[in-house]
Amino acid sequence: MSENQFNKIALVGAGSVAIHLGLALKHAGFKVENVINRSPERGKLLAKKLGAHYLADFSILINPDLVIIAVSDDAIPLIAGQLVGCSYPVVHTCGTVTKDVLKVASSDYGVFYPFQTFSVNNAVDFSKVPVCIDASNTAFFKRIEQLAQSLSGTVCQLDDQKRRILHLAGVFASNFSNYLYAIAEDLLLKNNIPFELLLPLIQETALKIQTMAPLEAQTGPAKRGDQSTIQKHFQLLQNEPDLLELYKTFTDNILKTYSHPISTSDLDLNVDK
Amino acid sequence: MSENQFNKIALVGAGSVAIHLGLALKHAGFKVENVINRSPERGKLLAKKLGAHYLADFSILINPDLVIIAVSDDAIPLIAGQLVGCSYPVVHTCGTVTKDVLKVASSDYGVFYPFQTFSVNNAVDFSKVPVCIDASNTAFFKRIEQLAQSLSGTVCQLDDQKRRILHLAGVFASNFSNYLYAIAEDLLLKNNIPFELLLPLIQETALKIQTMAPLEAQTGPAKRGDQSTIQKHFQLLQNEPDLLELYKTFTDNILKTYSHPISTSDLDLNVDK
Repeated sequence: MSENQFNKIALVGAGSVAIHLGLALKHAGFKVENVINRSPERGKLLAKKLGAHYLADFSILINPDLVIIAVSDDAIPLIAGQLVGCSYPVVHTCGTVTKDVLKVASSDYGVFYPFQTFSVNNAVDFSKVPVCIDASNTAFFKRIEQLAQSLSGTVCQLDDQKRRILHLAGVFASNFSNYLYAIAEDLLLKNNIPFELLLPLIQETALKIQTMAPLEAQTGPAKRGDQSTIQKHFQLLQNEPDLLELYKTFTDNILKTYSHPISTSDLDLNVDK
Repeated sequence: MSENQFNKIALVGAGSVAIHLGLALKHAGFKVENVINRSPERGKLLAKKLGAHYLADFSILINPDLVIIAVSDDAIPLIAGQLVGCSYPVVHTCGTVTKDVLKVASSDYGVFYPFQTFSVNNAVDFSKVPVCIDASNTAFFKRIEQLAQSLSGTVCQLDDQKRRILHLAGVFASNFSNYLYAIAEDLLLKNNIPFELLLPLIQETALKIQTMAPLEAQTGPAKRGDQSTIQKHFQLLQNEPDLLELYKTFTDNILKTYSHPISTSDLDLNVDK
């Protein structure tokens, strides 16, 4: 490990991002010395996993060479407030919070944003997680770039605005897609159809766009402008007003994207024919 | 190949389902003897791929032991009309069309519905494609069940109604998810952010639910009830009314699902604060 690297990292938080990042740091040979977390139970658990010491707060933290704040977006200003004037190099891991919220702590501050969906009990190959970084100065940028490159094959610089857009794009592509999976599961289970039948389709849909633009990969009745199938779906959803609304919103957007001169309001009139 | 199997299959259609099913039949050792398609160009191309003869219509088709109608949903009744009284065993491959549309053709009729998103230029491992079957009588059911099991590891019986529900669930989980990917790509490209950054997240989101229920796998600001992030997203989407509508619809549904006592209309009021 070179002089330039971090040998005494303090990790703040014990949620899913802290866990996965902590494990990735450990596996890459970095030393997480302390885990700091307001809940001792989860904090001690993660400290144990990482071979680190648990601390309840910053009062007895001694000269870390990097503080990584991996807590929820809302809690970052609070943590920054506890680090005023500490002069420890510090980054947060959040997509939507500005870099400058950490200015109060140190002249070396930045962002280390691993762009992936992390759950506590789900293994993730961190080498495939894009890490989006930003920093207050070039020298510190180089240091956290090197750290990021030790963990992941994809590292890029994004400023506050671009990082926010990426986060928003992730909400559409991941959080909302996952909710669609939940809707689909619910539809199937209500009708005694095994959810497993849907898994290969979901996998293939995500796989397809690794090599094909999404607009090229699009299939389905709205893409084809297939009015009779859309009307059959209206009938199946007649007792599910929330799903019907979502169905119409998507279908209208897709019909428009593929220049079909119809909308679901035209089709609605014929739903009982 | 046993007596019971199909050695002289006529495949109707030359679109993505016909292509992938035809190739799967060929690879499993079945003989596709004829490809029937109204467009000679695409029909001949597929016939060549399958080592079959192209026919423009049914007039010179001689005693196939199975006719597989793999055309668009709308065209199936038309094809059925051309097969009235032919007595050839016949199936269609469609999720939304009733089995009985084929009753006019034969006493042995049914459905052979491969549940996957197929694109012309995208290879698919057919052994992992669930095949949902149904048939007019038990003997014919057994025959197409055997055919399905020769191609795929997942075969199940679904009646018309369940097949329609599965198709609808697929529209939510696949077509609409893919459209979300397209939205995300558009957001990124407009802001000069590489779409590739999003691919690992999309992959992991689809992978996660192979082992975790979607409602358990859900992450993101709406799941957490994180109002300040949701409001930041409103601001980023203020010039994108269609996306903002979609964002609000999802967010309200997710807030409700996870029992957060707020809705986007409460947050809207504060968007400029």
